[in-house]
Amino acid sequence: MNQIRKPANADVTHGPLPASEKFYVDGERLDGVRVPMRKIHVHESANEAPLTVYDTSGIYTDPAAEIDIDAGLPRIRERWIDARGDTELYEGRDAKPEDNGNVGDDKLVPQFAQKNPPRRAKKGVKSVSQLAYARQGIITPEMEYVAIRENMLRDIAPEELAKLKAEAERWGAEIPDIVTPEFVRDEVARGRAIIPNNVNHPETEPMAIGRNFLVKINANIGNSAVTSSVADEVDKMVWAIRWGADTVMDLSTGRNIHNIREWIIRNSPVPIGTVPIYQALEKVDRAEDLTWEIYRDTLIEQAEQGVDYFTIHAGIRLKHIHLTADRVTGIVSRGGSIISQWCLAHHQESFLYEHFEDICDICASYDVAFSLGDGFRPGSGADANDAAQFAELETLGELTKVAWDKGCQVMIEGPGHVPMHKIKHNMEKQLAVCGEAPFYTLGPLVTDIAPGYDHITSGIGAAMIGWYGTAMLCYVTPKEHLGLPDRNDVKEGVVTYKIAAHAADLAKGHPGAAARDDALSRARFEFRWEDQFNLGLDPDRARDFHDQTMPKEAQKTAHFCSMCGPKFCAMEITNLVRSYSNDGMKQMAERFQEEGGELYKEEYLDESKKVAAPGDDD
Amino acid sequence: MNQIRKPANADVTHGPLPASEKFYVDGERLDGVRVPMRKIHVHESANEAPLTVYDTSGIYTDPAAEIDIDAGLPRIRERWIDARGDTELYEGRDAKPEDNGNVGDDKLVPQFAQKNPPRRAKKGVKSVSQLAYARQGIITPEMEYVAIRENMLRDIAPEELAKLKAEAERWGAEIPDIVTPEFVRDEVARGRAIIPNNVNHPETEPMAIGRNFLVKINANIGNSAVTSSVADEVDKMVWAIRWGADTVMDLSTGRNIHNIREWIIRNSPVPIGTVPIYQALEKVDRAEDLTWEIYRDTLIEQAEQGVDYFTIHAGIRLKHIHLTADRVTGIVSRGGSIISQWCLAHHQESFLYEHFEDICDICASYDVAFSLGDGFRPGSGADANDAAQFAELETLGELTKVAWDKGCQVMIEGPGHVPMHKIKHNMEKQLAVCGEAPFYTLGPLVTDIAPGYDHITSGIGAAMIGWYGTAMLCYVTPKEHLGLPDRNDVKEGVVTYKIAAHAADLAKGHPGAAARDDALSRARFEFRWEDQFNLGLDPDRARDFHDQTMPKEAQKTAHFCSMCGPKFCAMEITNLVRSYSNDGMKQMAERFQEEGGELYKEEYLDESKKVAAPGDDD
Repeated sequence: MNQIRKPANADVTHGPLPASEKFYVDGERLDGVRVPMRKIHVHESANEAPLTVYDTSGIYTDPAAEIDIDAGLPRIRERWIDARGDTELYEGRDAKPEDNGNVGDDKLVPQFAQKNPPRRAKKGVKSVSQLAYARQGIITPEMEYVAIRENMLRDIAPEELAKLKAEAERWGAEIPDIVTPEFVRDEVARGRAIIPNNVNHPETEPMAIGRNFLVKINANIGNSAVTSSVADEVDKMVWAIRWGADTVMDLSTGRNIHNIREWIIRNSPVPIGTVPIYQALEKVDRAEDLTWEIYRDTLIEQAEQGVDYFTIHAGIRLKHIHLTADRVTGIVSRGGSIISQWCLAHHQESFLYEHFEDICDICASYDVAFSLGDGFRPGSGADANDAAQFAELETLGELTKVAWDKGCQVMIEGPGHVPMHKIKHNMEKQLAVCGEAPFYTLGPLVTDIAPGYDHITSGIGAAMIGWYGTAMLCYVTPKEHLGLPDRNDVKEGVVTYKIAAHAADLAKGHPGAAARDDALSRARFEFRWEDQFNLGLDPDRARDFHDQTMPKEAQKTAHFCSMCGPKFCAMEITNLVRSYSNDGMKQMAERFQEEGGELYKEEYLDESKKVAAPGDDD
Repeated sequence: MNQIRKPANADVTHGPLPASEKFYVDGERLDGVRVPMRKIHVHESANEAPLTVYDTSGIYTDPAAEIDIDAGLPRIRERWIDARGDTELYEGRDAKPEDNGNVGDDKLVPQFAQKNPPRRAKKGVKSVSQLAYARQGIITPEMEYVAIRENMLRDIAPEELAKLKAEAERWGAEIPDIVTPEFVRDEVARGRAIIPNNVNHPETEPMAIGRNFLVKINANIGNSAVTSSVADEVDKMVWAIRWGADTVMDLSTGRNIHNIREWIIRNSPVPIGTVPIYQALEKVDRAEDLTWEIYRDTLIEQAEQGVDYFTIHAGIRLKHIHLTADRVTGIVSRGGSIISQWCLAHHQESFLYEHFEDICDICASYDVAFSLGDGFRPGSGADANDAAQFAELETLGELTKVAWDKGCQVMIEGPGHVPMHKIKHNMEKQLAVCGEAPFYTLGPLVTDIAPGYDHITSGIGAAMIGWYGTAMLCYVTPKEHLGLPDRNDVKEGVVTYKIAAHAADLAKGHPGAAARDDALSRARFEFRWEDQFNLGLDPDRARDFHDQTMPKEAQKTAHFCSMCGPKFCAMEITNLVRSYSNDGMKQMAERFQEEGGELYKEEYLDESKKVAAPGDDD
């Protein structure tokens, strides 16, 4: 039907990160569970094992893998899904011109080359979700995969674990010492975690979103006005996961949405989320022209393609819309404003709310997870935690229970713009009213006064709310509020959010988190410059920054850095101090005491070394 | 003695920020108090007064001012200092070759053209510090200046203030509704705030550092290996204060330190801090060669020039050094490692500790404030809150009391690298052991894994500790740990820290803080693009980012932005919603009720509009 323009695969970013090696850990229980991890090698002088880190980047960083975006990724979960025997292949919905925004043939991007028939739950099967299996006590391969992945091969001494737990502040999170498949199952069963895995996206490397797991991050991508090639569109996703995005939301609007999404999903090892109302709106002229039928058809279109989670703004109630009228920034969620407009124009509850159970049936049939949208999220600090926001959150709590009853996986979207002193209340309220369903927050931005730096205003709030219990943080780029992020902005946003997520893991005392900080700190202290670059989140930038001041290769092993210079290096001096001081203080104290010195008096001595005073027992 | 190369004044950044106007507010009580502020004009369509913001930028943003770095800034405080009658001019110390690192004449930068004789307390006057005056019940012009400056002409309705206070979490801070000169005096008298103002730096525009005032930020600058001109060195300071640095620390090492510092101080409207041990070390070969006499001479050298606060690592005790031996990153403070090395080499307490009272006498005589350094600050999250750090903090608490007894102003330096869950404990302990003396923290960095992004890892911690009670945040640039910051890095660091400080003010419910957020949010919501740029911390970047996607001038007034496009703008739709909804919901509810509609039932109606049921009173 369409011309097939083969994109140049070389256009997709690939190759390992510096000093990094992809390896795979096999599962023990189930066939075909092969979990990718990344090890970062350090200099032999360190006498340390390579550091193992969580790896979101898919086969694109595996030099042994054949990358062919025309073929798509290996369908690693297909066998597991098949084996469950509760789904059927069927002839799916035909793509319609409006699915691609009625774009003319000359502008239409090619369809993805391979057409696989979609899959859905067999008739009579209520749900094929990970939640449904978990409740039945089944440990799926996806759950074992998640367990192995979350552990990152960690191996921590019991006394270190005890210290960690004593110092940590977990705000009610129940992080296990080691993640077992049973733990994953139990968390999913009680709705505290989700594993977004559409049966039509068998290419995914399973991951969990829940506050007792590592904090995850999402990166948003969207089509460009001028699409140069599908490879460019696929590369946006590849680029985001290279730097650590755990999921990617495709927020495209306009033309070619359907075809580009297919290319992205077929090549994505991470779950893909969408906001289906965006595409639905493209199929009509105005918000008020939307109907349940158009929306439902869009859900099925996307579910058949393999979208793993849907943002659905079903929490907007007609009776709550007026609560936004006196706000400084009204309604700023795109989905929220579309639905609000529809509700007011029709003077009735939205079809999302009215048909929520029907939506659940669709989600359960494909295992699309809900991401219940916060259409009334505050768009400024002034509107944070107001009646509109919390009225909607209460509704989301009610809908969570409906979706759970239907066997659907659920997470809840959160604000937005919230000053620091109001962040914790958001988390507590969400946990309370949504039965501990995972929270998925945008930022939040802790101030509104820094357009151009909203990755930072939001990164502060993201770190804090991640600590308090948010399971996944939706990134914000420096272009937020101002323009479309480019490649650099996407990286800046992803790395900033990796910082926030990791800082949250550390503060929660996640048993695996500090290993990377400690390895990097050792490298820093020992002037292993290359290791310091490579162990960081962005080795390229670290090396570049270093080389701006000290470009020579020999300086990579210099025992000083450009901040202090050779005469003046604090760390170098510390090494001297250490050589004096490493047990030296005690030895010196003893020596000086013997020599009759004044300074190293008894207060410096170990109890055991003190000279017995006359009359003491020994 | 030296050649005078006149720097080109055009090299120093000057001119107002976009849409901004410098104006001055006169004091009421005392002569010559004339406080600079900045108003940001907004588009007339907004029908809003210009926003007044705190202004650190000095005359460099005043088009009416004559900028002549050869002449230095107007000596606005000279008259006040004179009037107090407790200081005397004297023939100061001569500059020695070692003050400039024994640089050869060919490399020597010129001396500052004007030579003013230094000033110190008259014989028999114990202290000429703001603390001493405050204790005597005197309100100095500096105190009135600070009061006017802190208020930013704020004018808040009582009900707004009440709401603010009800919602705020101040962690024990006692922020007044309005700052009076008496309040400033009382805060200074009890040591909870300092006004760093060396009598030899009469060019300063007084500012306060204390947790009941706006949170302040410091930017570090330092000389370059190759100094192209003194104008370049002065411009580093000018650039930092343009973006909001409240104080600047000159951390220069090596050559020309003395002369460059003079140029900086004479042209700086903000307090200048130094770490005198850095220069002292330049005067000897090795740390162990340092003596009290060399150090003392350096203190006097810098006090005569007008340095406003000294970082002094007097809290390092010999008996505590061994506590750092088992750390992951040992001692990372430059000053801390120099002193530790000295102590171990000599097997005795440092001359800073032994001569602390002598140092106090010097500081009291010039009103140099102490910034008691944390030489054992952790250099990695792993070392945070350990025995070495807190042992030193206890010592700093003891020294604070000594300095206070001597009539000196004191603040306390804090960490460093601290994961989020250990930050609050730092603040609480500092307040407890240092009698609420202002805390001045570096970051803290909440994770160690992101070299190249440490403005962000530290900005997170800075915002949090600022909220908890830190009075001044020392910035960190993206180059931290890697190289020397350039102009862009300095700006990135300053803006990041303005975000952190402002976020802290908001979270503490500072009565003046939200005005800027609200003004910017209104501009954002009303698509006043230019206002959104200009009200932000970095108008240049905001405009640049916007223009990358929507470069045309007409698009500055577009009622949509590039993220959504014209069909799809959430805020535009909200405006429609608002036109329906602004009281419209209630009206519609009434109308539909009259028309017998089902939807707008009583639950949507105001109590007052409900139809009386039979039997009701009226």
